[in-house]
Amino acid sequence: MSRFRLLLLACLLLSAAAARAARVDTLAIPSAAMHKTYRAAVVLPASYAKNKKANYPVLYLLHGAWGHFSDWLNKTPDKQLLHRLADDYNLIIVNPEGETFSFYLNSPVSLDSQFETYLTQEVISKIDQTYRTVANRKGRVIAGLSMGGHGALFLSARHPDLYCAAGSMSGALDLRTWNRKLAPAEAAGRARLWAPILGSEADNPERFADNSVLTLVEQMHRNGLPLIIDCGVDDGLIDINRELHRRLVYNHTPHDYTERPGAHTWEYWQTALPYQVLFLQQVLKVNGAAVE
Amino acid sequence: MSRFRLLLLACLLLSAAAARAARVDTLAIPSAAMHKTYRAAVVLPASYAKNKKANYPVLYLLHGAWGHFSDWLNKTPDKQLLHRLADDYNLIIVNPEGETFSFYLNSPVSLDSQFETYLTQEVISKIDQTYRTVANRKGRVIAGLSMGGHGALFLSARHPDLYCAAGSMSGALDLRTWNRKLAPAEAAGRARLWAPILGSEADNPERFADNSVLTLVEQMHRNGLPLIIDCGVDDGLIDINRELHRRLVYNHTPHDYTERPGAHTWEYWQTALPYQVLFLQQVLKVNGAAVE
Amino acid sequence: MSRFRLLLLACLLLSAAAARAARVDTLAIPSAAMHKTYRAAVVLPASYAKNKKANYPVLYLLHGAWGHFSDWLNKTPDKQLLHRLADDYNLIIVNPEGETFSFYLNSPVSLDSQFETYLTQEVISKIDQTYRTVANRKGRVIAGLSMGGHGALFLSARHPDLYCAAGSMSGALDLRTWNRKLAPAEAAGRARLWAPILGSEADNPERFADNSVLTLVEQMHRNGLPLIIDCGVDDGLIDINRELHRRLVYNHTPHDYTERPGAHTWEYWQTALPYQVLFLQQVLKVNGAAVE
Amino acid sequence: MSRFRLLLLACLLLSAAAARAARVDTLAIPSAAMHKTYRAAVVLPASYAKNKKANYPVLYLLHGAWGHFSDWLNKTPDKQLLHRLADDYNLIIVNPEGETFSFYLNSPVSLDSQFETYLTQEVISKIDQTYRTVANRKGRVIAGLSMGGHGALFLSARHPDLYCAAGSMSGALDLRTWNRKLAPAEAAGRARLWAPILGSEADNPERFADNSVLTLVEQMHRNGLPLIIDCGVDDGLIDINRELHRRLVYNHTPHDYTERPGAHTWEYWQTALPYQVLFLQQVLKVNGAAVE
Repeated sequence: MSRFRLLLLACLLLSAAAARAARVDTLAIPSAAMHKTYRAAVVLPASYAKNKKANYPVLYLLHGAWGHFSDWLNKTPDKQLLHRLADDYNLIIVNPEGETFSFYLNSPVSLDSQFETYLTQEVISKIDQTYRTVANRKGRVIAGLSMGGHGALFLSARHPDLYCAAGSMSGALDLRTWNRKLAPAEAAGRARLWAPILGSEADNPERFADNSVLTLVEQMHRNGLPLIIDCGVDDGLIDINRELHRRLVYNHTPHDYTERPGAHTWEYWQTALPYQVLFLQQVLKVNGAAVE
Repeated sequence: MSRFRLLLLACLLLSAAAARAARVDTLAIPSAAMHKTYRAAVVLPASYAKNKKANYPVLYLLHGAWGHFSDWLNKTPDKQLLHRLADDYNLIIVNPEGETFSFYLNSPVSLDSQFETYLTQEVISKIDQTYRTVANRKGRVIAGLSMGGHGALFLSARHPDLYCAAGSMSGALDLRTWNRKLAPAEAAGRARLWAPILGSEADNPERFADNSVLTLVEQMHRNGLPLIIDCGVDDGLIDINRELHRRLVYNHTPHDYTERPGAHTWEYWQTALPYQVLFLQQVLKVNGAAVE
Repeated sequence: MSRFRLLLLACLLLSAAAARAARVDTLAIPSAAMHKTYRAAVVLPASYAKNKKANYPVLYLLHGAWGHFSDWLNKTPDKQLLHRLADDYNLIIVNPEGETFSFYLNSPVSLDSQFETYLTQEVISKIDQTYRTVANRKGRVIAGLSMGGHGALFLSARHPDLYCAAGSMSGALDLRTWNRKLAPAEAAGRARLWAPILGSEADNPERFADNSVLTLVEQMHRNGLPLIIDCGVDDGLIDINRELHRRLVYNHTPHDYTERPGAHTWEYWQTALPYQVLFLQQVLKVNGAAVE
Repeated sequence: MSRFRLLLLACLLLSAAAARAARVDTLAIPSAAMHKTYRAAVVLPASYAKNKKANYPVLYLLHGAWGHFSDWLNKTPDKQLLHRLADDYNLIIVNPEGETFSFYLNSPVSLDSQFETYLTQEVISKIDQTYRTVANRKGRVIAGLSMGGHGALFLSARHPDLYCAAGSMSGALDLRTWNRKLAPAEAAGRARLWAPILGSEADNPERFADNSVLTLVEQMHRNGLPLIIDCGVDDGLIDINRELHRRLVYNHTPHDYTERPGAHTWEYWQTALPYQVLFLQQVLKVNGAAVE
């Protein structure tokens, strides 16, 4: 084999290897609001290390209730899903902590649970300081599953200045209805989880209403943010998602809405995420924030 | 610059070029059934020429009414859309001819319009003879827009032995309703187009019913073929697509269904196609028919 | 008290008494088709005995599965409901027998269960011979609950020459879906009930489809018969009823459709029936078949 | 003919005549809030004059936009409709004035248009002083068409202490959407009508939202008032009515909902009213407020 061919081979092998070389950082991100520090997993695309002049768009990817920051990396059947998406789209994927039951909002009850502030100020600030990001709304998108689907739509509806698009998978989009469907024992357990976040629903119905995505449809209409919303037809949350879709159709808010086979499972979310990223990437491209 | 670096540069440039080197053949495909020959556009992925041992999966991509085989290559705002999808997914994309108003069915009225036979026998056979394809249902998927969305669901529902998945974009899925929404002058024009295909609707209502995808939902249920169906909320066909979705939910037929912003336009279809190909590719992968 | 006043009082009391004097006959109606005789309860309005020159319109009122001809008289909380409706609208209300599980169709399996023939020929003929009826479609309406709702829509869809309007309360309008929602033990029990009527559903899916009201929507569209359909939102059959409503909206078949609080109970049907009779009476009036 | 028979005949004739002897008063009802006096039409049932010990329940029946207090008596094809319903149900039917475009609310813009105060205080008070009524919520029901359907649901949602049930026919239940569907010229005209009532929608979107029945569904849920809502499938307001129905189903608010053939016409309302009165009468009966 000639020296030329050897070189060519090496170079091809290298580039093939590089194609799946996404790196994952685990980053400590302190919260002044909550007086504690949480970790985040940051998936950097393979090109990030080489393409040193480029600023990369960031996808904030939120986990569900009873979950943690590492879920999206550990619980999908395909453990390379995020690596591949980061590489294919040249996207930084940040998986921040949302705690087991914060719903990504600022609790009026407990200073311990101020995740709206954490996500929209502290995490973004830390990420933009640590990495070469497109450090404005044009390069920032947010998505999540279940409680994280709520989080993505809730935070983007209230902070359209921070994100340019948002996605919800199997979102728990109505805190009221979601609680109402339970057997007594389960309801009591759920009430215990809500107590330190929003207090008792009976005593504070307006808190549960005002923090539900379903009541933000006029806000979402005014924002005009590109939205992608999906849910499995066998998911217990399908009725809530259908209701949000209808209300967004009714008030003429542009959005993508998908129903597909599946339930509230990681198989479903592994299937759903690539469609969400394809959608979000289109917005980043139009914004000129994508790394080609 | 050293000779090594020059070589490296050349090799990188080459691979970059190769990444967008999809080739388009225009192929004549004769029809014995119709005693004439139509052309098809065949998009071959860049890897096809090099990867000579691989058999490639094929996407049959159908055009709409008043259209022709070259539409998908000529009418999308982004003229490289099919090239890119072929390359990204290592997929042969075949754009067969469906004539201005055939609805991809075998006319009981005219021997001139036998497109079900043409598509399911003559075109497939020619493609499988001409190219290194996965020459069975496991490597064959079908999709289309408008009349072509009808075609994809209609042909796959009736020939589940030939295709492993199907997709409809803005499909004209109910020949009856689609005709009923018209002003008198338009209705007369439409009737003239139907006359040589299905005859008069008044005289042959059962023909219009039996050739409508909407009446094939039990067949689709039995087939269990993966399906992806989408429509724009501003499309005149949205009610028909919603109706099909509801009927498939009602009879528990697994399918992906999406509503998104947009109307009956090439901007919409350019947006929709990548989601459809992402979906179809997942099926090909599970079948072991995808070229990695 | 003067003689005049006494007389006036007597006359007022008499007329008050007469106002609730509906008579109930129990009539034996033989079936040549089934070689046996069933009973029917016939409610005659108070005016029937006096108004000897008038021909009265007839409401055929069908019972549900696991029920019998006397249900509508015995099971509503208000035992005078039918008497009152008969009197208020000058209507003969016939409650024919439909057996525990006939679905008012002609079984292709068993000569013992030929209720379509019984209802549409033998019962009508006997009633028209026995009473002063409007002996044609203009004076004949049909309604029922659950299996009887199916019966009313099924028989009127197939015999628009016999009835001028039909009503379904909580109708079991899709034999397929209705069977599919069951736990295994219940499904086995249901299958045993269907066996002598339609055979096994697995072996004869088309029988279950063809005998379902849901598949008759095009027929119903062509008939143009006034229809009233209702269901309680807590009824297990609500999804089927919603599906029929949507399909009738979709294919532009005029019909009244109501959802109201309630489940599959006699309280619900007692509430529903007066609305159905009000509707049916309007049709009879327009037909000139009502007794004023 | 004997004297007895003559007497009997006379008495029967009298009672027959009495059965259709509903009396209509035109009553001036001053408004202190608006510093002017409007008329109302009051239909008294035939029995009212004779049954001097009974207190009668009252139906407040509201007219639509561009209408007036006498519409329900003058515009239904059957000019005796209200008379008959008043007699059949022993109901006082009050038709108050709502002006051409008041929407039965208290304008924050103009002291001239304070119809919520007028309807809920001044009209009720005058009626209860003038007639033998059941002078509390148990004997008071409210219904209306179009703008009046809005009025009935709006006033009863905000004053559940005053009414025990409410009904809407073809209700304009979302002031926002109702305005949005217009061609430019029509929209300008509509804006001129709204200006003295709610001001400009662009400047005061929250006023249009807060005065829309569609935003009161949680209030309606808490009230638990029996509600009956209907709309014709060919009515331009059908989508709004469907939306309200879905939201009431979604938040588990008991209500009757009907779709039937028809558009925004007096033929439709003549058909609809008897069902509404049948519904409202059931509530009055349960309350012990009906005159038997």
